[in-house]
Amino acid sequence: MLTNTRTRRIKWSDCDPAGIVFYPRYFSMFDTSTTVLFEKALSMTAAQIFKRFNVVGYPLVDARARFLAPIRFSDDVTIETAVAEFRRSSFDVQHRLLKDGKLAVEGFETRVWAGRHPDDPARMKSRPIPQEIIARFSL
Amino acid sequence: MLTNTRTRRIKWSDCDPAGIVFYPRYFSMFDTSTTVLFEKALSMTAAQIFKRFNVVGYPLVDARARFLAPIRFSDDVTIETAVAEFRRSSFDVQHRLLKDGKLAVEGFETRVWAGRHPDDPARMKSRPIPQEIIARFSL
Amino acid sequence: MLTNTRTRRIKWSDCDPAGIVFYPRYFSMFDTSTTVLFEKALSMTAAQIFKRFNVVGYPLVDARARFLAPIRFSDDVTIETAVAEFRRSSFDVQHRLLKDGKLAVEGFETRVWAGRHPDDPARMKSRPIPQEIIARFSL
Amino acid sequence: MLTNTRTRRIKWSDCDPAGIVFYPRYFSMFDTSTTVLFEKALSMTAAQIFKRFNVVGYPLVDARARFLAPIRFSDDVTIETAVAEFRRSSFDVQHRLLKDGKLAVEGFETRVWAGRHPDDPARMKSRPIPQEIIARFSL
Repeated sequence: MLTNTRTRRIKWSDCDPAGIVFYPRYFSMFDTSTTVLFEKALSMTAAQIFKRFNVVGYPLVDARARFLAPIRFSDDVTIETAVAEFRRSSFDVQHRLLKDGKLAVEGFETRVWAGRHPDDPARMKSRPIPQEIIARFSL
Repeated sequence: MLTNTRTRRIKWSDCDPAGIVFYPRYFSMFDTSTTVLFEKALSMTAAQIFKRFNVVGYPLVDARARFLAPIRFSDDVTIETAVAEFRRSSFDVQHRLLKDGKLAVEGFETRVWAGRHPDDPARMKSRPIPQEIIARFSL
Repeated sequence: MLTNTRTRRIKWSDCDPAGIVFYPRYFSMFDTSTTVLFEKALSMTAAQIFKRFNVVGYPLVDARARFLAPIRFSDDVTIETAVAEFRRSSFDVQHRLLKDGKLAVEGFETRVWAGRHPDDPARMKSRPIPQEIIARFSL
Repeated sequence: MLTNTRTRRIKWSDCDPAGIVFYPRYFSMFDTSTTVLFEKALSMTAAQIFKRFNVVGYPLVDARARFLAPIRFSDDVTIETAVAEFRRSSFDVQHRLLKDGKLAVEGFETRVWAGRHPDDPARMKSRPIPQEIIARFSL
């Protein structure tokens, strides 16, 4: 499966008064990592992907993280991201955030491929994930 | 067990280009809900609690959320928060976010009661949760 | 002019490793304060206001803040918000954030009343602010 | 004067329901840009700089931005950052955010070089900016 690895220096805005990353920011980092993985797979920006496949995005139905070691301001971390499984209209993403080669945070997301609801554009409706997309992740 | 219920109007800053709450913000709302629960239990601000019991805070080792229905800008939601279990130095918190009385997001946190490490103030070390605190949640 | 005053306890998520509010969060608080002021003036939620008057929102063209005193986790602050001037399609908002009755942060926003561009829905276009709205602020 | 130029792809988490960057996020981007400029000037991480010079950070006393054109999800922007003036214990930073070579947002910050207050570690006190630091910006 295609994996994306990116490095990131922890920012002042990521950290809390205890001097460590405020945990919701890990979910935000993982959200960006999923986007970067899709951009890498499809060689387009996420905005182009959403437009091309006529979806609103890939909202979450489940998110989880385990925090094994605290990360601090200015730490350089590596985030490894891969899709663990594609199903008909949903998929699982796994993230591993490492510092100095050691796993510090593990993240899991279940997302749905979603377009505008045909009867009500304010709502969303899951749609089958195109085979053309899935194929790009198994290269 | 003591439960805290608070209502909150969803802000512009909570929402993403799909017009729904960006999911890491739910974790941030739950973090605040845990704080409000402790403040209610102990009749002190969280800063006073941390100072009084000489801890840095209650960092997370595990966080999870299930997203059942999207929430939009200006929606009024209710968040119910309770500690599900206290252990020696860790505890579980459960959050239920409802809209119009219907469950929309469920959150789970496992947190550790943590002070400065005696050998290295830059690190944290779990500490036993004072019985005085636990007692306040079972009133 | 109509003024809105709200109180707010500073959250863990608002603060940085120096233990004080991370300054972009003041702009986010002020954004919410502007929303609350409009909701008070019009007795509708902001989502209802935007729908009723067919606008996308009131994006900023200028924002400024002066920081006079640091604010910390658990501090209770008061935010006073008023529109300083309405022009044809733009308006100025002023915010005063106080702690213990003393001014700590002052904010200034210039915003534009904006709808979808008739030729391109992806763009925005300024629109005249309805007199019906302006009237509600001078009651 | 030393200038830092960095490029950044706009994230989902940066944007609001109007599909454009939520303006407080620009201040957060500029905060990171100031950090990156200092890291470039001193060839150390910001955490190392703060430790080495025994300061808590460089909190703001004034921040301003002018928004000339909206920026959207997936847009690639360039941020140019430079210190405009160093004074005894404060300094001014200017940021220019460009898209396709055109200025979209201009930012201005006045910051103070601040250490712990000698009489009360919970407070901060401005300190003279070391000549050694200023010299690195004029290379």
